[in-house]
Amino acid sequence: MTSSPAFRSDVSVSLIDSMGGDQRLVQAARVSTKGAESVESAESAGLILYLMRNRHASPVEHTVMTFLVEAPIFVAREFMRHRIASYNEESGRYRTLRPSFYIPARDRKLTQIGKVGEYRFEPGTEEQHDLVEKAQERAYLAAWSAYTEMLEAGIAREVARMVLPVGLFTSFYVTMNVRSLMNFLSLRTIHPEADDPSTPQREIEMVAEQMEESFAEIMPITYTAWNEFGRRSI
Amino acid sequence: MTSSPAFRSDVSVSLIDSMGGDQRLVQAARVSTKGAESVESAESAGLILYLMRNRHASPVEHTVMTFLVEAPIFVAREFMRHRIASYNEESGRYRTLRPSFYIPARDRKLTQIGKVGEYRFEPGTEEQHDLVEKAQERAYLAAWSAYTEMLEAGIAREVARMVLPVGLFTSFYVTMNVRSLMNFLSLRTIHPEADDPSTPQREIEMVAEQMEESFAEIMPITYTAWNEFGRRSI
Amino acid sequence: MTSSPAFRSDVSVSLIDSMGGDQRLVQAARVSTKGAESVESAESAGLILYLMRNRHASPVEHTVMTFLVEAPIFVAREFMRHRIASYNEESGRYRTLRPSFYIPARDRKLTQIGKVGEYRFEPGTEEQHDLVEKAQERAYLAAWSAYTEMLEAGIAREVARMVLPVGLFTSFYVTMNVRSLMNFLSLRTIHPEADDPSTPQREIEMVAEQMEESFAEIMPITYTAWNEFGRRSI
Amino acid sequence: MTSSPAFRSDVSVSLIDSMGGDQRLVQAARVSTKGAESVESAESAGLILYLMRNRHASPVEHTVMTFLVEAPIFVAREFMRHRIASYNEESGRYRTLRPSFYIPARDRKLTQIGKVGEYRFEPGTEEQHDLVEKAQERAYLAAWSAYTEMLEAGIAREVARMVLPVGLFTSFYVTMNVRSLMNFLSLRTIHPEADDPSTPQREIEMVAEQMEESFAEIMPITYTAWNEFGRRSI
Repeated sequence: MTSSPAFRSDVSVSLIDSMGGDQRLVQAARVSTKGAESVESAESAGLILYLMRNRHASPVEHTVMTFLVEAPIFVAREFMRHRIASYNEESGRYRTLRPSFYIPARDRKLTQIGKVGEYRFEPGTEEQHDLVEKAQERAYLAAWSAYTEMLEAGIAREVARMVLPVGLFTSFYVTMNVRSLMNFLSLRTIHPEADDPSTPQREIEMVAEQMEESFAEIMPITYTAWNEFGRRSI
Repeated sequence: MTSSPAFRSDVSVSLIDSMGGDQRLVQAARVSTKGAESVESAESAGLILYLMRNRHASPVEHTVMTFLVEAPIFVAREFMRHRIASYNEESGRYRTLRPSFYIPARDRKLTQIGKVGEYRFEPGTEEQHDLVEKAQERAYLAAWSAYTEMLEAGIAREVARMVLPVGLFTSFYVTMNVRSLMNFLSLRTIHPEADDPSTPQREIEMVAEQMEESFAEIMPITYTAWNEFGRRSI
Repeated sequence: MTSSPAFRSDVSVSLIDSMGGDQRLVQAARVSTKGAESVESAESAGLILYLMRNRHASPVEHTVMTFLVEAPIFVAREFMRHRIASYNEESGRYRTLRPSFYIPARDRKLTQIGKVGEYRFEPGTEEQHDLVEKAQERAYLAAWSAYTEMLEAGIAREVARMVLPVGLFTSFYVTMNVRSLMNFLSLRTIHPEADDPSTPQREIEMVAEQMEESFAEIMPITYTAWNEFGRRSI
Repeated sequence: MTSSPAFRSDVSVSLIDSMGGDQRLVQAARVSTKGAESVESAESAGLILYLMRNRHASPVEHTVMTFLVEAPIFVAREFMRHRIASYNEESGRYRTLRPSFYIPARDRKLTQIGKVGEYRFEPGTEEQHDLVEKAQERAYLAAWSAYTEMLEAGIAREVARMVLPVGLFTSFYVTMNVRSLMNFLSLRTIHPEADDPSTPQREIEMVAEQMEESFAEIMPITYTAWNEFGRRSI
């Protein structure tokens, strides 16, 4: 409670652990056609291309990653709608939260044009950015002040936290297999090679981009094939 | 945006639809032992007791319910950690939200005694309730004022909403089968007959209690048996 | 045990129950954009088309169906690889099984041309059909004879059943939501309008075709839109 | 097809890979109470005991294992009813299967006493074991002979395999997290310390026992705590 409020415009994603990889995918796929006795590494790339093109998704599920994510609550809310994953998040019931709040950076698009289903975002003016910064800081500080006032009066954390905004940072561990990650990335990134349109909020896309880098490192062949065949959920 | 802020101390749950029931459970269970050809209704209660006592959980999955829930965001956050369910929630990206905020009622316990894993809640004093009401109203109004100021300046809804508190009301449809509902109730209610300890936040328990009433109506025999055998997740 | 062996070339699917439908999909989708207070039925078809085209899949999860399927074990094995569903199946441990066995009909293609990933099926000759019928009947009867011999000698059902073939009929209840059903149909049917290639075994396709009829009846608008946009898993 | 039929009485389970462990569980659990910044290893055992006793199950989901299992089809059928796992299995459509068949060992109990829900198994006599061996070998060889006859006549593998028995060996990769593994073990093993009754078929218990050894090695503290608190599904 002694820490003073801080404002951030970034999110953070750390890869904590992983298992599997391109070779595991090949090994799991070949059990279908050759049984368990025979697994060679030759021609892996060809097989992976074939599997991606034909939506043979199950062998990619044996590659699993654990990340630690720091992001605002509104990002965690969207993230946890992905049900094929395991989560542990910081709890406002069990600990006093820290005053770290999200404010969009100056290059974050601020205005929305068009109607539902067709809208796109445009940059804000300097005045609009000034207004957002001031309005958000003011509201964040008011919330924090009410939160600490209640805590100091002996109110339970789970009651005091009700005033805290969805722009507050939270942190969580997430473990997901690469099939679920492909689904996540297909919905939470915008990419010219993607077959399917998606309109993620920029802040969850910032998280997704960092996760995508880990995917590219851990499964380089699969990652390339996935891009080649439209970055789809399979 | 023209609506004026409102404060609520309740949550609302409506049963929208259901399928299945006690008889469906019996029918599904008997396919194991008698095949599909033979389904009588006699002795259903005995069979249901047997299934509950022995954790034969799968036949209860064919009974499914859809609810519409109105509750604060902090409740929706906990609720959606339950992954065996289907959700559609009001979106702060696609619509302008309404200023309805949660403030605990006077009989809501306010203070927390003991350490993590053992704490319990005690009633607050009148002074504490006054303080919470004032602090929460003040923070909620500050957040709402910042939100509307940003919207009026042409800022996108998804940016403006960052200041909104987790005490804001949201609404969502949820469909879950009764096995998942049993798990939900075992974790989100406190009950003297329960085998397992649970320490839900009061507000999600208020939602759970309304869902439990629907369970009792739709599957009276199963509901009784579930209580008799410890209200467990099976 | 007194029943005499029977041979079948068909599968059977009965719709036992359902909840939801096109209007439920619209209602669930609109909670995102209008909140819970406002649900009109006008323009439903347009909204459904929009949702299908843009892969907004979650609102379709509130429509749920229960089927009773009778099919050979090798079909049940493939079916139950679909994890987003609830199953109850006849048990060879808890009951004596009935001697109903699958033999392909005369119009079932019998021969496989090409290599893995590219093969296609061709009709068999009369001689090949005769050979299959004789070989299968002979093997089925040998299995059944060994099964009954063991049962008569007091051997446990779960041991005696080890000799029974995957061509034996089984029956199971399955409950799945329509999102999961779309995934099932996209993988288990072959269709000229489908975006994605799939190569299901004919017998599971026979099951899928009957399930598809129920989908078309219960959600006519959604079904049409799903076909229009490539019959994909979303 | 040139291989000659073989009979086995064992199953095989190999641990292929794992990630996580006791320390990962602690790390994930502490994010709730201390945030991500603070993770010490002291007092891990106490925390793990606390989590197991109170059914705080989610932190155990970040520990994940991949196994390769060789077992009869009737075991694979029961295994794959566990939906929180990833599977790749040998395919009778894509490859010619190998003639390896399961026959119970001499110490496998053969007879079933009592009625559904209460029955128990008793040892068979020598005569009963002789009869089972002969009946099973005879049926297995008849099935294999029909299978190879059809393949030699140019019949597709997916048609020829219909005669193969559920006692035929198959192999599959399975990846599951330890929460799902605890559920599996609670249902598929019989143990004096278990809170809940379960009546698995002996052959799937043989698979489960080998998986349990890997669990004990990879998470020794968690494994001990899980046993202490009743070996339950949490």
